[in-house]
Amino acid sequence: MFRDKIKVLDCTIRDGGLINDHDFDVRFVREVYKAVSAAGVDYMEIGYKNSKKLFPAKDFGIWKFCDDADIHKVIDGIPSKTKISVMVDVDRVDVDDVLPKKDSPVSMVRTACYVKDVDKAIHLANQFSAKGYETAVNLMAISRALDNELTECLHQLEEECRANVIYIVDSNGALYQETTEFLIKKAKSILKSKEVGIHAHNNQQLAFGNSIEAIIHNANYVDATVYGMGRAAGNCPLELMLGFLKNPKYDIRPILDLISKEFIPLREKLEWGYIIPYAIAGILDEHPRAAIALRESSEKENYREFYESLVGEVEE
Amino acid sequence: MFRDKIKVLDCTIRDGGLINDHDFDVRFVREVYKAVSAAGVDYMEIGYKNSKKLFPAKDFGIWKFCDDADIHKVIDGIPSKTKISVMVDVDRVDVDDVLPKKDSPVSMVRTACYVKDVDKAIHLANQFSAKGYETAVNLMAISRALDNELTECLHQLEEECRANVIYIVDSNGALYQETTEFLIKKAKSILKSKEVGIHAHNNQQLAFGNSIEAIIHNANYVDATVYGMGRAAGNCPLELMLGFLKNPKYDIRPILDLISKEFIPLREKLEWGYIIPYAIAGILDEHPRAAIALRESSEKENYREFYESLVGEVEE
Repeated sequence: MFRDKIKVLDCTIRDGGLINDHDFDVRFVREVYKAVSAAGVDYMEIGYKNSKKLFPAKDFGIWKFCDDADIHKVIDGIPSKTKISVMVDVDRVDVDDVLPKKDSPVSMVRTACYVKDVDKAIHLANQFSAKGYETAVNLMAISRALDNELTECLHQLEEECRANVIYIVDSNGALYQETTEFLIKKAKSILKSKEVGIHAHNNQQLAFGNSIEAIIHNANYVDATVYGMGRAAGNCPLELMLGFLKNPKYDIRPILDLISKEFIPLREKLEWGYIIPYAIAGILDEHPRAAIALRESSEKENYREFYESLVGEVEE
Repeated sequence: MFRDKIKVLDCTIRDGGLINDHDFDVRFVREVYKAVSAAGVDYMEIGYKNSKKLFPAKDFGIWKFCDDADIHKVIDGIPSKTKISVMVDVDRVDVDDVLPKKDSPVSMVRTACYVKDVDKAIHLANQFSAKGYETAVNLMAISRALDNELTECLHQLEEECRANVIYIVDSNGALYQETTEFLIKKAKSILKSKEVGIHAHNNQQLAFGNSIEAIIHNANYVDATVYGMGRAAGNCPLELMLGFLKNPKYDIRPILDLISKEFIPLREKLEWGYIIPYAIAGILDEHPRAAIALRESSEKENYREFYESLVGEVEE
């Protein structure tokens, strides 16, 4: 018996864009949109809304900015019930860049923040709600959040924020099932009027398992990416999530085709997935940035030295 | 607080041998033994005891037979507390090939069987127990076992079998956490006098997650392999399991070195891991043999056709 409330958000292009400065061509993104639409995926997150005042457009791919005109190039002419989502980071978005919902192809705006920045996120999310969008707040680096601060943050979101969904984001890929269960139950107990979501990273091959765990404990929004593509170790693979979910509206086959035709060749050019330095970062609950730097160096396979360098940094 | 009763069995060479007809050279196996010994791993399973009357020795690597003389070539001169395990299949072992424990470097003999063959497995395991070995029975293809037959099988094992450990084996890589929980709880409720173990396959990237799930529900024996090497999608990665377990006797670093030096180059020659046809087989709860055949064909990336071929076989 499936749970109709479960919504799958594909963030392949958005999270994958962190590997290549958001530089996917329109043809490729159209192929992804076609496939996730045919697969019955509920949302597709296509990139970030960043201010061009802060980031020169010439230095990045177009999905760092997600101009509505570029989104139209992707979606126009493709039959679809899949809604478009964009992500914003606090302090990096120009709210005026986001048109009222009625004038935009975007349906959902998700604001990403650390627990400490929740006031800024609430301020942003409420503005996007006022413009008519579905909104979400994605709480990043949740494995590093202190429990008392997370409690306060969740109460604030429940009381002050108009966002429909609050996501638990395991940026470090550090969570095991027991902590995932703890965090989802905690969020559900405070966020009485909202849905809870999960965005997992796959450093320890637990992105799918933790997403299932979150679903078991009544998270209804799950993020996934095609073939797990995403920064560093990547994310919960969409094909596995669709294979798991029982809602007959989902169809895994268009995603299988997409992987065969587009993602097997792409994986030769972009690196993501189960790679030991990312696993080490997950085990040690560290941000992947040091592991990403290692993978770009000549010492990319020196795992023990990398491990020692991280555990050696302990100070009283 | 760690649970002292948890024992980790490395089956890299045994399960990995299913990819290359058990043809690892002694130098390589010594490197694995050195590393798992230094890492504090409790057992290392080195291969199968198959009858040379059934399988001509010239057609296979030496780890299909595990002669004691070959085991000595691996372990002699290496300081270690890691015990050696061998696996036997029902109907494929000559019991007389297994010397009394006091004359052998082997500590544990594990008998693999399907639920339907449990009588044969009990008969074998009891003989190995009588020879002085620690013994286990590994119940394969558990996702296909009918509940009433599994119940009877577990009662028989509890009452008639001298094996110390009974393993739940997810041969198809089809289990999710909820069924893993169900099976481990069921086994624990019947096998009052024995330990319960888990051997997971990684088709759906759930081998580690399901092994954690089994540990949560009091399985104390867990199988893992270096870098997840094993047939098809492979197994629970040993490095992740050691990163998870809290017992200070375990040290992940020798395994990190071993992966850098031996397994990254090996992966260029042998294929295992997250590969879509194995994921499909797991999702559909099928044995990986059709997916293995596909990967050896020119149609290795034709995922949709492979999926259709499996779901098209449904008959009333």
